Amino acid sequence: MSAGSIVVDLKFAPESVAAALKDGFAGREVINMADPENRDRDLSGCAYAVVWKPDPSLFDRARNLKVIISGGAGVDHILASYELPDTPIVRFVDRSLTDRMSEWVVLQSLIHLRQVPVFARQQREHLWEPRDSHPEAADVTVGVMGLGVLGADAAKKLKVMGFDVIGWSRSAKRIEGIETFDATGLETFLGRTDILVGLLPLTDDTRGLFNADLFAGLRQGGALAAGRPVFLNAGRGGSQVETDIVAALENGVLGGASLDVFQTEPLSADSPLWGMENVILTPHVAAMSDTRAVFRHAERQIARFERGEPLEHVVDRNRGY
Amino acid sequence: MSAGSIVVDLKFAPESVAAALKDGFAGREVINMADPENRDRDLSGCAYAVVWKPDPSLFDRARNLKVIISGGAGVDHILASYELPDTPIVRFVDRSLTDRMSEWVVLQSLIHLRQVPVFARQQREHLWEPRDSHPEAADVTVGVMGLGVLGADAAKKLKVMGFDVIGWSRSAKRIEGIETFDATGLETFLGRTDILVGLLPLTDDTRGLFNADLFAGLRQGGALAAGRPVFLNAGRGGSQVETDIVAALENGVLGGASLDVFQTEPLSADSPLWGMENVILTPHVAAMSDTRAVFRHAERQIARFERGEPLEHVVDRNRGY
Ligand SMILES: NC(=O)c1ccc[n+]([C@@H]2O[C@H](COP(=O)([O-])OP(=O)(O)OC[C@H]3O[C@@H](n4cnc5c(N)ncnc54)[C@H](OP(=O)(O)O)[C@@H]3O)[C@@H](O)[C@H]2O)c1
Ligand SMILES: NC(=O)c1ccc[n+]([C@@H]2O[C@H](COP(=O)([O-])OP(=O)(O)OC[C@H]3O[C@@H](n4cnc5c(N)ncnc54)[C@H](OP(=O)(O)O)[C@@H]3O)[C@@H](O)[C@H]2O)c1
Repeated sequence: MSAGSIVVDLKFAPESVAAALKDGFAGREVINMADPENRDRDLSGCAYAVVWKPDPSLFDRARNLKVIISGGAGVDHILASYELPDTPIVRFVDRSLTDRMSEWVVLQSLIHLRQVPVFARQQREHLWEPRDSHPEAADVTVGVMGLGVLGADAAKKLKVMGFDVIGWSRSAKRIEGIETFDATGLETFLGRTDILVGLLPLTDDTRGLFNADLFAGLRQGGALAAGRPVFLNAGRGGSQVETDIVAALENGVLGGASLDVFQTEPLSADSPLWGMENVILTPHVAAMSDTRAVFRHAERQIARFERGEPLEHVVDRNRGY
Repeated sequence: MSAGSIVVDLKFAPESVAAALKDGFAGREVINMADPENRDRDLSGCAYAVVWKPDPSLFDRARNLKVIISGGAGVDHILASYELPDTPIVRFVDRSLTDRMSEWVVLQSLIHLRQVPVFARQQREHLWEPRDSHPEAADVTVGVMGLGVLGADAAKKLKVMGFDVIGWSRSAKRIEGIETFDATGLETFLGRTDILVGLLPLTDDTRGLFNADLFAGLRQGGALAAGRPVFLNAGRGGSQVETDIVAALENGVLGGASLDVFQTEPLSADSPLWGMENVILTPHVAAMSDTRAVFRHAERQIARFERGEPLEHVVDRNRGY
């Protein structure tokens, strides 16, 4: 086994991994853990691991890793759950992933702005009922929490669509045309927000952040239906308190929600969220990693590493993202 | 009655017209035809008419008009139905109207790209079912028919969202990043289009244009679900043949549609379109004219006219738009 061999443990659709491996990592040994033949393989010679929700024993067995590469943008799937070797962790950053996330965020923002659920109900009833007034994007402020790779792109595209956009992140940011707040400006930020977009990583600091207290700080009386704010989350379910979302929807603190992520996934079939008015659920598909793109990204990082160049998108283990 | 008085006959919500008139046209006589008191008023002294689907007798009664101002972007509502005096007709062009139309076009394109109806059905059934592959916007070509004020703006915003965008109009256009075709390039344009967007005015040339023949020319085998193209129309219903749309949806020539306009409005409650899969109907609300903005626009044009400056957005009666 050469020093440069790669273990792949991606809990994606197995066919997509197998297909992408056909063209990926030419000239290198690749051990795909989805292949039953590899179940008991010696992994001690592997230098690189490309992983998404890997088997708990992986890091014990592959004990000579030099770089761990996450198959997704988030790394909570490995940081939280394993005793990790002290090697650098690279996360997945990719044009296609970013574009897909912004598709989801703009789509969901427009769904709430344009009252798609109301018109869908009218359609089911064969009812022609234009309303008298419709807010336009410029009347609505979208507040984006998390201005990283994904949040910054979504914010810019929301702005192009005409929304008033503000943003919030740990450290202050500069994005043209968008007013931004740092951690200390949370209250002001929330008080101006009609559509709240969560694009935060899951860390000790963000766990449970989207709760009743936070929702109570959002603007009431804005331009959306009944003046009520709406909550979108495509970061991580662990950052939200679903019982608080349900309560806020019931008592009118929230007028709607779009959720792609959940505290437990798959979302339990008896969650009240499935059937709530003005709530749109998607099964963690806001931005799917393209497997080929993950491998191209891994190849690029491995090449950099072997040439002695710095790795890109390295996770700060203290911050947790 | 002063020479500069204005007759208003807007078939919008009457309260919105009354409210907007409170601040509009300061210092001028305004005759609002929605007010029953004005039913039999002498209109021979009116110099300006601001109209949306006006009463058939209006142009007989207001026989000394100098300018007719349409309350909407389209003018088929007056050109087709009346003996018009030989005065200039100004149509409504407005930032807010344009932004709203692009909201609708981007929203509907994303709904079909991201298979919102499929996920909505899964949600109703409490089913967690991510699919294995999802096209991204870059995999899908949106072909915009009509590259006027509205089409050009929609095309640019679709491009920002990552779609591959092409466009078609009577005369050739130049829009950065977007390949455009003129009337002679229709076949090539259609053969590359996965999502067809109609943003054409209704004229003798465009009546019935969106028919079985045209749909048959759209690309099959593209990146949308089942490789089928989708038809969006927010121009005018008279440009589409609804029986052909229904047939194309049934025989798989189309995979979906979003329609804001219809051959007869309101759409009859027994149209099969209401209940069809992957069909989204909205009741002619894609871009509502804001009444205050219509009056601001009318004031600007009247001021130009009275200063002897050329009117803007004047309709070419020969072309019909
Ligand atoms: N649903 C899906 O399909 C899907 C797909 C991909 C990713 N995701 C999720 O999206 C998350 C964001 O991805 P990304 O690539 O944009 O990450 P990123 O580039 O690391 O950005 C993270 C952003 O969150 C901010 N942040 C982190 N902790 C914070 C805190 N305690 N308080 C305030 N702001 C904080 C960061 O602030 P600083 O800028 O100050 O560091 C940064 O702006 C991922 O971690 C993942 O969980 C979901
Ligand atoms: N659903 C709604 O809520 C709503 C709201 C507002 C407007 N509308 C509709 O949208 C239409 C378009 O508005 P707009 O402001 O963009 O109009 P516009 O600026 O006049 O643009 C019309 C476009 O259509 C093209 N066109 C016209 N006839 C054609 C033909 N026979 N073949 C090929 N191209 C043709 C024109 O080509 P050239 O550039 O070569 O002239 C132009 O690009 C309006 O007429 C109205 O019917 C609907």
